[in-house]
Amino acid sequence: MIDDNKLVALLGSGLASIDYPASPAGLYRPVEYTLESGGKRLRPLLCLATCDACGAKAENALSQALAIEMFHNFTLIHDDVMDRSDTRRGRPTVYARWGEVQAILSGDALLTMATQMACRCPADRVSAVMELFNTTAMEVYEGQQYDMEFEGRDDVTVDEYLAMIRLKTSVLLGCACRMGALMAGAAEDTARAMYAYGENLGLAFQLRDDWLDTFGDPKIFGKPIGGDIRNRKKTWLFIMALSEAPGQMADALDGSADPVARVTEIYRSLRLDERCGALVEKYRRAAVDALAGADITDDAYRYFTGLAANLSTRQK
Amino acid sequence: MIDDNKLVALLGSGLASIDYPASPAGLYRPVEYTLESGGKRLRPLLCLATCDACGAKAENALSQALAIEMFHNFTLIHDDVMDRSDTRRGRPTVYARWGEVQAILSGDALLTMATQMACRCPADRVSAVMELFNTTAMEVYEGQQYDMEFEGRDDVTVDEYLAMIRLKTSVLLGCACRMGALMAGAAEDTARAMYAYGENLGLAFQLRDDWLDTFGDPKIFGKPIGGDIRNRKKTWLFIMALSEAPGQMADALDGSADPVARVTEIYRSLRLDERCGALVEKYRRAAVDALAGADITDDAYRYFTGLAANLSTRQK
Repeated sequence: MIDDNKLVALLGSGLASIDYPASPAGLYRPVEYTLESGGKRLRPLLCLATCDACGAKAENALSQALAIEMFHNFTLIHDDVMDRSDTRRGRPTVYARWGEVQAILSGDALLTMATQMACRCPADRVSAVMELFNTTAMEVYEGQQYDMEFEGRDDVTVDEYLAMIRLKTSVLLGCACRMGALMAGAAEDTARAMYAYGENLGLAFQLRDDWLDTFGDPKIFGKPIGGDIRNRKKTWLFIMALSEAPGQMADALDGSADPVARVTEIYRSLRLDERCGALVEKYRRAAVDALAGADITDDAYRYFTGLAANLSTRQK
Repeated sequence: MIDDNKLVALLGSGLASIDYPASPAGLYRPVEYTLESGGKRLRPLLCLATCDACGAKAENALSQALAIEMFHNFTLIHDDVMDRSDTRRGRPTVYARWGEVQAILSGDALLTMATQMACRCPADRVSAVMELFNTTAMEVYEGQQYDMEFEGRDDVTVDEYLAMIRLKTSVLLGCACRMGALMAGAAEDTARAMYAYGENLGLAFQLRDDWLDTFGDPKIFGKPIGGDIRNRKKTWLFIMALSEAPGQMADALDGSADPVARVTEIYRSLRLDERCGALVEKYRRAAVDALAGADITDDAYRYFTGLAANLSTRQK
């Protein structure tokens, strides 16, 4: 049986055993600071759970799970420089605490450390691991590039948006699952099915993220509600409203005293809260459907369907 | 016989055949721009020449030679952001032309592209290639970190400086040579000897760089003479002068009308021009001596000793 607590403990011991050289401290302290900062650890858990589900010990995929978490954290360090973000996970970002120069260089180091960690496996698998890891990394950069380009555009389509979040967020979840299957020596069909599970899960996850930022419960969400609207972020909700009610959106964003409330009202009047929820549900179902192609136990099937249900209805 | 022109042509065709996706252009154009900008191509040529010298076709090491050149260029893109440099190789830097955000993200992409390129080899060598490539990358970041830390310190010792340039510059030349040996299937003794050659060559190269920046011929050097002094860069010359004539250096740097001329005078009075030249010569000799441990042809030996002589006496 896949035991989440055991996987979390395994991951924790893996993170604790990462060897940070004592010097130069200016390079390695920001890396250590970032990796100890928590977060959902969703990606490495997917990797470990998939390895377990494919009939191998979760330990077999530990280095690769860590590598994916390290890669994810590297992207956050650099994203925070690019976005000039001061806070993440309730703490100062590396950018805010050590400055831009240090955030760039420590991020670079973390990317290479992630690559080193990914390569810790039987020599005959390194080639396949690198292929998956590096291809995914390139897709994530492409997603980040599109996300930034969308900031300056008012004509982003929903399809473009979905393609962007697939690259920026979903492929890394797909990669985590496939990596777990790879380290378990699973058949290609299973590996591909688990990738599709992770990919669709990632789309549901990101769309739920967009939904929560506007419609979440302020007492549970943990961040101020409406940040995306305030920043005019091109989320699914924002793009749909721009396309279906451009005049109202222009009025709401241009000189309205409380744009967050006004835009939220427009979203509701277009029933975008429900429609976004239906889209989350569509991708959750696609994720679950993908599991049919994976040779995993009934117990593992229940684990992954449960995880998809939780992520699609999470309140924070 | 190792034919430099052939190696340069091989490298050129390799660079020309790199596949840049058409979109997102904002991500890939800065990468392409950087790689087409020329430079000495010293590192990839060392890699190809070593592969050839070890009795294999230079083509066998082409992907790895390109990977090392790509890695080097990735570090330049990010260094230029960190240093706020506007010009490199006579052209605007990526930072100057596309801005900081784009330079960070394109640099990240180039690092991953370099890693992908390095992995293009028989599957049973990927593990060894990654080990060498990633270890070297970490050392280069450490060198960059120390270099930046030295800016804020006035008590940097010569030993610290030499350790820093070994990390920041020399290990990548050592890596290039060892990578060539690895792709040729050379014995470990030869691989190690060629690494030592590259490492010592790198020290000679960097110290000659320091020397040229102050004592080079302005008509040949290509950059304004004295940039290092103007920026109070902690070069070997600067550190030696600070240690042997601290009072004169303070006077020269503090309010003197022409600090470059004054500091250059101090360097000459301490005979640092000659003494720096002697150090270059020491490392050139160490590089040549290392070749004795490599199982290479007499012709290859002549090639590498000739290269060391050229780099140690280069005027630009």
